[in-house]
Amino acid sequence: MTVNILFAAKPASWAAYETPLKTALHEAGVSADLRRDFAPAEVDYIVYAPDSTVQDFTPYTRCKAVLNLWAGVENVVGNTTLTQPLARMVDHGLTQGMLEWVTGRVLRHHLGMDAHIHGLQGRWDKHVPPLAEDRPVTILGMGALGSACARALAGLGFDVTGWSRSAHDVEGVRCLHGDAGLAQALSTAEIAVLLLPLTAATQNLLNADRLAQMPRGAVILNPGRGALIDDDALLAALDSGQIGHATLDVFRVEPLPGDHPFWAHPSVTVTPHLASETRPTSASRVIAENVRRGEAGEPFVHLVDRKLGY
Amino acid sequence: MTVNILFAAKPASWAAYETPLKTALHEAGVSADLRRDFAPAEVDYIVYAPDSTVQDFTPYTRCKAVLNLWAGVENVVGNTTLTQPLARMVDHGLTQGMLEWVTGRVLRHHLGMDAHIHGLQGRWDKHVPPLAEDRPVTILGMGALGSACARALAGLGFDVTGWSRSAHDVEGVRCLHGDAGLAQALSTAEIAVLLLPLTAATQNLLNADRLAQMPRGAVILNPGRGALIDDDALLAALDSGQIGHATLDVFRVEPLPGDHPFWAHPSVTVTPHLASETRPTSASRVIAENVRRGEAGEPFVHLVDRKLGY
Repeated sequence: MTVNILFAAKPASWAAYETPLKTALHEAGVSADLRRDFAPAEVDYIVYAPDSTVQDFTPYTRCKAVLNLWAGVENVVGNTTLTQPLARMVDHGLTQGMLEWVTGRVLRHHLGMDAHIHGLQGRWDKHVPPLAEDRPVTILGMGALGSACARALAGLGFDVTGWSRSAHDVEGVRCLHGDAGLAQALSTAEIAVLLLPLTAATQNLLNADRLAQMPRGAVILNPGRGALIDDDALLAALDSGQIGHATLDVFRVEPLPGDHPFWAHPSVTVTPHLASETRPTSASRVIAENVRRGEAGEPFVHLVDRKLGY
Repeated sequence: MTVNILFAAKPASWAAYETPLKTALHEAGVSADLRRDFAPAEVDYIVYAPDSTVQDFTPYTRCKAVLNLWAGVENVVGNTTLTQPLARMVDHGLTQGMLEWVTGRVLRHHLGMDAHIHGLQGRWDKHVPPLAEDRPVTILGMGALGSACARALAGLGFDVTGWSRSAHDVEGVRCLHGDAGLAQALSTAEIAVLLLPLTAATQNLLNADRLAQMPRGAVILNPGRGALIDDDALLAALDSGQIGHATLDVFRVEPLPGDHPFWAHPSVTVTPHLASETRPTSASRVIAENVRRGEAGEPFVHLVDRKLGY
């Protein structure tokens, strides 16, 4: 029997999700008709973005669940016409994408890959990098993302230190905390990865003083929040050689303005806030799994508690 | 009590090993005098390269062991003046270095890192790569090096296929073998890593026919042996776009001649045979551990069987 699934989101989302969703539903063994137009009374499930034109759920009388495309549900959870189960998006692609972005950039700098990417132009210039076990990497921020990156880097053999405000414990990682721990974590960080939340306490955490505590020529990777770094202090440290390179994915203003000095600086790499993004492929699998569960009479995953609001 | 260690190898090796060896001995708790000159009768251990000037071991009457700097012992094992225990070098850096080279280059191509390394010049061009789980990587050759790389890539989440002549089994890796398996392994390989031994059967394994079996735009990484690939067929496939990029660490002639077309080709990256090299840091730890064992009365590791010759 065919399940009717309404895709209620903006046209750009349809372009990104149509193929991955159909593939994921097929792989989940669900025979589905996925479309952007149905008579409301014929709809079995709604794949939903809170900015879609569907705001009154009353006519969707046989709808078994509303499956949110977004992690955030604050713009739908208060809708009193929504009486069906509501599931939020929990996409493992957010953590996995971060892990890949961080691991790739750590290896780029660790291995000195740029020399070969730019081309040796006929010079057989054999310079063997140290092993990962001799490369101290510090992760600032040991929440879900920081811990996942620390584990992946330790798994590849890196000498990993993790720092956060309060104490924590991750196997294979030297875990430090508090102000004294921060000074120690910075003092050894040949590569530092910023994955702290942005709070009053972490704003401008990497200021001129703290940049000066790092080993000369250290590399900074920031896929966390732009305001964790004092931009002017960073540019000065790059110009002096105290910091060897900065690869930045997040900025105080995004998109990063075209005339910002980060774009043209030879020791800065800009990536356009792509380290942690919902991936249509992995997000589609989450939605397909919930449709499969609904049809099999199994409980939905990632259900929103309507009283708690998340 | 101080242990006298003679370093018997060429001056270039001394330059590379003096500091790491002294550090490793210190870290192993050995109080050592490491020098290139001793009266032979005062020497406790010899750190040895078979091309050193020491060829007569008779005067080294109190020497407890000869610790080879090289993995190969074929140029010392037949020396009849050598009556002391002989240990060969087993450096985990060879496998670990390969794992790092391969993982770094797979991530470079998987993530499209070049676009950012070369600089977006003010363009906020957000192109989110697929997750590793949606990137099929094929390892050709599942010996010690290939298996280690396959495990590391699978650990990062990649969709890994391993192929070798005979059947094998590695957890988390789709293992194929034989001729039919090769065709299947190539047909899905968006990134292929060559880690086969060079034999009559594997010479020119990647010829025009097999390159044509790969997905259009596939990336080839060769840290194995240069002659596994038909160079002319590879250049033709790169020019036609059938192969998107090749990153090569090994070549039929090394150093790669300055006028070889690989150097200037925009879709070829040359690295100068550095994927798997003995690292002074890790090799020094192996030597220091054997000195520590000798002084503690524990058995040496990596001892050569003088009858078997290895």
